[in-house]
Amino acid sequence: MKDAISPELHLPAGFSFSSASAGIKVSGRPDLALIECDPGTNAAAVFTKNRVVAAPVIVDRDVLKTGRGRIRAVVVNSGNANCATGAQGLQSCREVCNESAHLLDTKPQQVFPSSTGIIGVPLPAAKILAHLPELIAGREATEDAAQTFARTIMTTDTRPKLASRSFRSGRDEVRLLGIAKGAGMIHPQLATMLVYLLTDLRATPTQLKRALIEACGQTFNCISIDGDTSTNDTVLLLASGKSKAELKSRTAAKGFGAALLEVCQSLAEQIVQDGEGVRHVIRLKIEGAKNPAEAMLAARAIAYSPLCKTAWAGADPNWGRILAAVGRSGVAINPVKVSIFIGEQKVCHCGQAFAFDEKAAHEHLSQPSCDIRVQLGRGRAELAFLTCDLTDEYVHINADYST
Amino acid sequence: MKDAISPELHLPAGFSFSSASAGIKVSGRPDLALIECDPGTNAAAVFTKNRVVAAPVIVDRDVLKTGRGRIRAVVVNSGNANCATGAQGLQSCREVCNESAHLLDTKPQQVFPSSTGIIGVPLPAAKILAHLPELIAGREATEDAAQTFARTIMTTDTRPKLASRSFRSGRDEVRLLGIAKGAGMIHPQLATMLVYLLTDLRATPTQLKRALIEACGQTFNCISIDGDTSTNDTVLLLASGKSKAELKSRTAAKGFGAALLEVCQSLAEQIVQDGEGVRHVIRLKIEGAKNPAEAMLAARAIAYSPLCKTAWAGADPNWGRILAAVGRSGVAINPVKVSIFIGEQKVCHCGQAFAFDEKAAHEHLSQPSCDIRVQLGRGRAELAFLTCDLTDEYVHINADYST
Repeated sequence: MKDAISPELHLPAGFSFSSASAGIKVSGRPDLALIECDPGTNAAAVFTKNRVVAAPVIVDRDVLKTGRGRIRAVVVNSGNANCATGAQGLQSCREVCNESAHLLDTKPQQVFPSSTGIIGVPLPAAKILAHLPELIAGREATEDAAQTFARTIMTTDTRPKLASRSFRSGRDEVRLLGIAKGAGMIHPQLATMLVYLLTDLRATPTQLKRALIEACGQTFNCISIDGDTSTNDTVLLLASGKSKAELKSRTAAKGFGAALLEVCQSLAEQIVQDGEGVRHVIRLKIEGAKNPAEAMLAARAIAYSPLCKTAWAGADPNWGRILAAVGRSGVAINPVKVSIFIGEQKVCHCGQAFAFDEKAAHEHLSQPSCDIRVQLGRGRAELAFLTCDLTDEYVHINADYST
Repeated sequence: MKDAISPELHLPAGFSFSSASAGIKVSGRPDLALIECDPGTNAAAVFTKNRVVAAPVIVDRDVLKTGRGRIRAVVVNSGNANCATGAQGLQSCREVCNESAHLLDTKPQQVFPSSTGIIGVPLPAAKILAHLPELIAGREATEDAAQTFARTIMTTDTRPKLASRSFRSGRDEVRLLGIAKGAGMIHPQLATMLVYLLTDLRATPTQLKRALIEACGQTFNCISIDGDTSTNDTVLLLASGKSKAELKSRTAAKGFGAALLEVCQSLAEQIVQDGEGVRHVIRLKIEGAKNPAEAMLAARAIAYSPLCKTAWAGADPNWGRILAAVGRSGVAINPVKVSIFIGEQKVCHCGQAFAFDEKAAHEHLSQPSCDIRVQLGRGRAELAFLTCDLTDEYVHINADYST
């Protein structure tokens, strides 16, 4: 949690930040944010796999393709997801990009838009267009401006999420800064995990894509708050090339891989910790799977099970629910080979009850962060998966009649 | 819900019922129940698909195979699931069957055991064995005895679940009685849907199996409380042959198919209505699927979505969550072809917001039973699926630290 509480920001060279209040959020809080990237910045991104995608995601895919991975600006609005808004939504998104490009003296296909907020409500493009000059004029390459950017893109998040690392590649210093928002689809009609990863490393879009997919597979793809996939999820990696270090060198690749993994891991944890109503973060470890895919199947069956999640809310060492979830996961387990641990304690041995200290298990599960380990007894593949409990607060927040 | 409130029982000939208190439930309530079947009764059953199965399910599969589908008795205990209890659990289950067979003067492979209750706790076989003579002596072929049987097999159910139909095949009257318990895995460590369907029709085990699979596919396989599959789920169909009507005749087959579907449908509805913390039953209709399998994929994605379920708890006509759930369901939808209805009202047209009366939609969703219809725009397959909301009460019940 050091990243969240008092992040030391290693600000990469080549990026400046700005925020404004365009009046999209009814609260009047800042809801329009910008990252300006120096010329020569390369980009790679991964998006939601949901078939229902928001207008900015459609535009982003187009931008990365036609602009060949060159990005000069990221324009984000919170308070409106611009999703299920049809042709008008696409049109509004492009207008914002066109005007931003015009004001920044660049091309529309180098402007990367993001939206997060309510689904199915037309994007108030006029409000955004009216505040773009102010937004662009206010940009600064400072830690404060980056911190404000992180707050501006928040919707139901209770705290900004940043993580940062630097490393040396020979004599060159490389910096990596990550900024994220969201916690699954967490609020009535509000959605979206947005992650921006900025570095001053030199790298091509292809190299960045490879590094990004590798890091996401072990981090953002291994978390679940509620099993619902947003329509706007975006992870964007930008490399300004202002450092002399190049990703193609072995030292830089190693240092960058480690830094990227750490930053993504930290942001992923911050997202789960800030999940709606979350009282316990569960560090799920699947061991003894035949391959990574079946480890993922087992992890997701447990992480998505309302019965497991409500047991965790009550700090209940109810291993029977975990065993039953694994049993219906689709993994061809033999129950008598399955063992389950809560913290350091074995609670289920060979698919059966195992004498354990229930008080100690309850106490372990009462902590804000808990470890649950499941051994499938089928092979050697492992997976770490981050999830959380399902509390009455989650239900209250999501059941409030909002429309 | 006429079945639930005041069921008119068409008691099939050839069955008698009994109940006893063996002290398995700490409350001291009846927890041991018997159905005795006349000689010549044929059986077919379907079981949980969970890889983790309880001891009685293992024994039942064996019983149906070695006994060639002939059943003379069903012995059920509530209060203990006899699951994750290892070799000792199997041994205990067989002891109960052996002693029941001995007392009933039949073979152990004609005794069909069921258990429902806590997982991972040894079955108190001695208590059951001590009360078998009393249980067997008390059997009666009366409506009262059947009603008491339905109450005895309850765990966290708040009401007994029965449904019954009779029909004529030529001059012969055929009766069908269904008794069920459970509502998914609904309580801390308590599990299991058990369904017993009794008829006096004449039919072979193979004919019964075909009819049972057909009816289950449209009823018990189309309901979900919380997405968790129990380790003990069992649906058993018994035919005493005491009526002269035979399933192989076309009239009887038609009458029986309809009666079986209605009884299963009624019991499935009673199970969802009695689901833990349920305030709204949701009748989900999927239309325009390419085939039944993808209709099921879409239905389950919606029915399992915590965001959809919590919106229903708040009577919130939040169609964006339904659209997003369909988007990640795995069905290759084109969002612009998807429409969504709440009650009679269209709320999403071609994947976009559609002007609708929000107050009326909210009022429809405030009813105990609500209709939601999703058109996928891909083909002609349809599916009706029954599910429910996710309320704070569900969380409270399942998060109570119980061990």
